[in-house]
Amino acid sequence: MADNPNCDLKSLSPLQLFQRVTEQGEKVRALKAGKAPKDEIDAAVRMLLSLKLSYKATTGQDYQAGLPPKDLVLINNGTNKEEDEDFVDPWTVQTSNAKGVDYDKLIVRFGSSKIDTDLINRIERATGQKPHRFLRRGIFFSHRDMDQILDAYENKKSFYLYTGRGPSSQAMHVGHLIQFIFAKWLQEVFDVPLIIQLTDDEKYLWKDLTTEKAYEYAKENAKDIIACGFDINKTFIFSDLDYLGTSTGFYKNIVKVQKHVTFNQVKGIFGFTDSDCIGKISFPAIQAAPSFSSSFPQIFNNKENIQCLIPCAIDQDPYFRMTRDVAPRIGQPKPALLHSVFFPALQGAQTKMSASDPNSSIFLTDTPKQIKTKINKHAFSGGRDTIEEHRKYGGNCDVDVSFMYLTFFLEDDDRLEQLKQAYTSGELLTGELKKVLIETLQPLIAAHQERRKQVTDEIVKQFMTPRKLAFEF
Amino acid sequence: MADNPNCDLKSLSPLQLFQRVTEQGEKVRALKAGKAPKDEIDAAVRMLLSLKLSYKATTGQDYQAGLPPKDLVLINNGTNKEEDEDFVDPWTVQTSNAKGVDYDKLIVRFGSSKIDTDLINRIERATGQKPHRFLRRGIFFSHRDMDQILDAYENKKSFYLYTGRGPSSQAMHVGHLIQFIFAKWLQEVFDVPLIIQLTDDEKYLWKDLTTEKAYEYAKENAKDIIACGFDINKTFIFSDLDYLGTSTGFYKNIVKVQKHVTFNQVKGIFGFTDSDCIGKISFPAIQAAPSFSSSFPQIFNNKENIQCLIPCAIDQDPYFRMTRDVAPRIGQPKPALLHSVFFPALQGAQTKMSASDPNSSIFLTDTPKQIKTKINKHAFSGGRDTIEEHRKYGGNCDVDVSFMYLTFFLEDDDRLEQLKQAYTSGELLTGELKKVLIETLQPLIAAHQERRKQVTDEIVKQFMTPRKLAFEF
Repeated sequence: MADNPNCDLKSLSPLQLFQRVTEQGEKVRALKAGKAPKDEIDAAVRMLLSLKLSYKATTGQDYQAGLPPKDLVLINNGTNKEEDEDFVDPWTVQTSNAKGVDYDKLIVRFGSSKIDTDLINRIERATGQKPHRFLRRGIFFSHRDMDQILDAYENKKSFYLYTGRGPSSQAMHVGHLIQFIFAKWLQEVFDVPLIIQLTDDEKYLWKDLTTEKAYEYAKENAKDIIACGFDINKTFIFSDLDYLGTSTGFYKNIVKVQKHVTFNQVKGIFGFTDSDCIGKISFPAIQAAPSFSSSFPQIFNNKENIQCLIPCAIDQDPYFRMTRDVAPRIGQPKPALLHSVFFPALQGAQTKMSASDPNSSIFLTDTPKQIKTKINKHAFSGGRDTIEEHRKYGGNCDVDVSFMYLTFFLEDDDRLEQLKQAYTSGELLTGELKKVLIETLQPLIAAHQERRKQVTDEIVKQFMTPRKLAFEF
Repeated sequence: MADNPNCDLKSLSPLQLFQRVTEQGEKVRALKAGKAPKDEIDAAVRMLLSLKLSYKATTGQDYQAGLPPKDLVLINNGTNKEEDEDFVDPWTVQTSNAKGVDYDKLIVRFGSSKIDTDLINRIERATGQKPHRFLRRGIFFSHRDMDQILDAYENKKSFYLYTGRGPSSQAMHVGHLIQFIFAKWLQEVFDVPLIIQLTDDEKYLWKDLTTEKAYEYAKENAKDIIACGFDINKTFIFSDLDYLGTSTGFYKNIVKVQKHVTFNQVKGIFGFTDSDCIGKISFPAIQAAPSFSSSFPQIFNNKENIQCLIPCAIDQDPYFRMTRDVAPRIGQPKPALLHSVFFPALQGAQTKMSASDPNSSIFLTDTPKQIKTKINKHAFSGGRDTIEEHRKYGGNCDVDVSFMYLTFFLEDDDRLEQLKQAYTSGELLTGELKKVLIETLQPLIAAHQERRKQVTDEIVKQFMTPRKLAFEF
């Protein structure tokens, strides 16, 4: 799946961003003057607004035509926030709010549904299992059609899970684990097949990589994924470069999606431009196609209508909004979705953890010492400037990255609540909170590394071989 | 390969064409006003010129802004010709000249090379065979890098042939045979592998067809192709929908081409618009990829650099100009090309024979009676209005469709020359010339039908099974 491959607005200088906004403004005017089709104008306007938001997020100033940026103000942490400015697409997550993206607003904007207590209780009843901490704590916070999945499940109708990863480098970070930890839990409590797509073709298209290198990364990343503890009899992992050439069902679904999505649409959804290569432009269909069971005839016995459930980070939703739009037109069921929040960067929740910035990330390959140093050095703190002030006014868990990470990884609800109380009251100091996080992550990552060592090339090959799984369809 | 699937300008009414020109003109102005990138403006201008040409070809009038077409003049036959107005792309062939497209000008415009006597003599020397009538008569008239193919061949370096067909309906017409007849001859005289692509995915994308129907057409068309007499040990026929899912080499080349071609480029080359589906936009890469031997590891023993030679009608050249542009950037040899003229419609050489217009075509399924009736009724004649005038002034072979067809199908050079003399002098009447054509085509098509009957589903399956051929690489 897409992991920051395109339109990396964050990497642009304020002046470059200024020029992008100016050019896009001219484009919009030209389209309007030329009485271009409405959807073309709308897409250009959306792109313009996004660029303006990025410009403001980067410079702290509103874009003013003809006035290039001069005195730059970096985004501040938590004060003077304008929550409307969250920018979220498959490649860029940016907000000026240190608490992170306003997810309630995102639900409204994306038109998805909140995962509320009723739904969580229903999942508990249906599975007979305590809801995962990601559900209890709102880390998976939004969904599409999860109620339909449960309706069907309660009527003994099965479904399958689909998630994925864009293998851009050998090292995965802890944030990458979230969807796999959750997919594993879902697989166990519902007892369903899990399909994991490694979009090595996407990485080849977006990055300066050979197909061989992209495929190598896919196999390396598969080791980390397998080390999460997936059941080989219930899980199929595939690389696009590999599987596309071994399954006629998959390509047929790709071309069906490609027939029903126009360039105007992908331009509007993903911000592609005329200068993008045709591979990028048609790629969304390749991420869409595994949502349909006929892409995996060997697993689903050629059945076309097995419902799919996709756990993913909310930034991947644009792909699946598109997929859900196309599904009925090609006679397939719409995939259901469970959306997670982003995993914040060490520096703060204004953006997500990114493997391309080593200081923003804790990697699954990091040593205990590296973990300790990174957290102590980089994890943004919600504590006060001095111990005295901290004791007096207390810390702010809403913006403290160490506390945020503990909500992801500390299983014990009571302990988490105690830490929150103690930090908020000032009883617990930043250094002490960081220590808890370090002591939580170190054994977790060490255990992951231990399991990963056991994953041989042969095991990877088995997981990636198209085959029947331990389910009858 | 593409056979009239998109932008079918011929099917537009004069008023619709007028509106298309107007809209495109506005688009060009808007792009210029908005200081759009140069290649974007150039592409839009090229599209505008093409539309203006089509408008004039249809209405006989120059486009005038604000003046919709009123009194329509149909294109005239041979008089008042403006040869610069030939319009040629993979979907539309149109000229106002009854002699057909000016191919010498097309060579200059496309930047290809003429197949001259020297080259034909060299082919004769290299193969020790009399050049095929299609070479002797300028039916294959243009090439790219055929000299390199011969250089390599003379140094005992092999190559392979690649051609194809877009299976849009069950019935193929005689014009479709040209490239296969020639490919067969090339295969025999050079003794090389032949690969035939059936672009059923393209037909699915462009037409109102299911993937199943498109694949069915592919298999039906394969029967007609096999009936040309190809050697099963030297020929591989494949459907995209089928083969793409059975060859990782093919998909890897597709994605490599897709990475190196932008939307701007395909817009300029093929006239795609923002409203086209992403499948069409990325399709050119699928027609490009068989130009690279690594798309067929089973045939070429995983060798990457076997040179490819593509015999095709000149309207397919845009695909391969694009392919040749990409080839060095992905470390592959450029495919060489041999271009044929179009096979004229029965009504005249202003456009090519099209399977979608039954009256313009003689189908491979036509009975002797149908062949006779169609030729007598529809074949445009270069004869005079009355027998007296014909005897006095003679007929015009340059515009006579029956004579043109005879240049394609009558093997005997002397007989063809005699017919030409007799018709030009007025000695031979139109009805008599048509009779010669009927008597040439009837047994040829009957023999084809006889051979086609022998082609069982099992034989088709064998031709379409990926396998090693009778060549060592």
